Amino acid sequence: MNERGRFITLEGIEGAGKSTQAAVVCDLLTEQGRDLVRTREPGGTEMAERIRTLLLDPAHQGMSAEAELLLLFAARAEHLARTIRPALAAGRWVVCDRFTDATYAYQGGGRGLDSAVIGCLEKLVQGSLRPDLTLLLDLPVAVGLARTRGRAALDRIETENEEFFDRVREHYRQRARLEPARIRLIDAGADLTAVTGSVRRVLSEYLACCD
Amino acid sequence: MNERGRFITLEGIEGAGKSTQAAVVCDLLTEQGRDLVRTREPGGTEMAERIRTLLLDPAHQGMSAEAELLLLFAARAEHLARTIRPALAAGRWVVCDRFTDATYAYQGGGRGLDSAVIGCLEKLVQGSLRPDLTLLLDLPVAVGLARTRGRAALDRIETENEEFFDRVREHYRQRARLEPARIRLIDAGADLTAVTGSVRRVLSEYLACCD
Repeated sequence: MNERGRFITLEGIEGAGKSTQAAVVCDLLTEQGRDLVRTREPGGTEMAERIRTLLLDPAHQGMSAEAELLLLFAARAEHLARTIRPALAAGRWVVCDRFTDATYAYQGGGRGLDSAVIGCLEKLVQGSLRPDLTLLLDLPVAVGLARTRGRAALDRIETENEEFFDRVREHYRQRARLEPARIRLIDAGADLTAVTGSVRRVLSEYLACCD
Repeated sequence: MNERGRFITLEGIEGAGKSTQAAVVCDLLTEQGRDLVRTREPGGTEMAERIRTLLLDPAHQGMSAEAELLLLFAARAEHLARTIRPALAAGRWVVCDRFTDATYAYQGGGRGLDSAVIGCLEKLVQGSLRPDLTLLLDLPVAVGLARTRGRAALDRIETENEEFFDRVREHYRQRARLEPARIRLIDAGADLTAVTGSVRRVLSEYLACCD
């Protein structure tokens, strides 16, 4: 396999159904005979998972926004070097639950950090690498949070308030408006069958263009 | 105490005697009635110490230079927010074993990362804050490494080769040439009494100017 693999990311606020739809994406790619790696951020390598633990620990409630941003990109640098770039170079497809769009949405939109600084870090760790396709699972914040808060324990990010997630959602939607070809907005507030149908349709269109 | 405290850092390669001389600095400041905080980098807060553990773990031998750089500044952001800035604001003096000069020397000089990127991160986490006085304990690499390698276990950075530390030392010396008023170069290859004498003399001169 000499052809470079493709890099597909799933984005959205808490409770948008990213894990469920990542499985749908992987199933469809496997049906089409694609060799793939499923991964997530922050995480995807042993060290990056250790950074994830630091980031999500509710004991670190008062962590500075700058430290959070830098930890995320440190984990991303490792994830790219050890997992994502080698997989793509070997012709494998990478399906990743969250990537840099999430950093713009959460740390830029949610925490109010300067997008130019995020752009500087993006360039440092990614160079020109960007996702080939991003599925943005969009739904009202109240609906997403109601789903999440049914779960057992909340991590440090999940305990943020609704206004925080409103800013995150709006930032995600702005990014989709700016890059409509890469970021495909999917109504994730619909019932599961409809969301799955949308995801399969968008991915099938993308695959048809790839061949 | 309304007067802002002063920020003193100690720098140098492995085996330069930073810990010993930090104690000398603290003793002299205490003799002069200064209220002080002794700390170190990476570290100085609970979370920053956890980042230190990640950074120095020999299991992470192949860590990307970018991840290393970002982890260092993440730890620094926490250290500044929770330890250094509150202490200085309360009029306390801060004595810190390593700071951003070390990042320029090790990650810039040693690993070859772009100084402009380090400068961008310095601005992000420090704003305009810089050490008031830096004692650079300078000695030949072979002498420093011989001291270090007598110790029990080497951390991930200490296992680098001599050429790496030659670049680090040279970068430190260049910085001292560029900022001679702040960075005072001390011959740390001399015997302990002479090094201690030099440190006390430089610090006394600085204190005389402060009053």
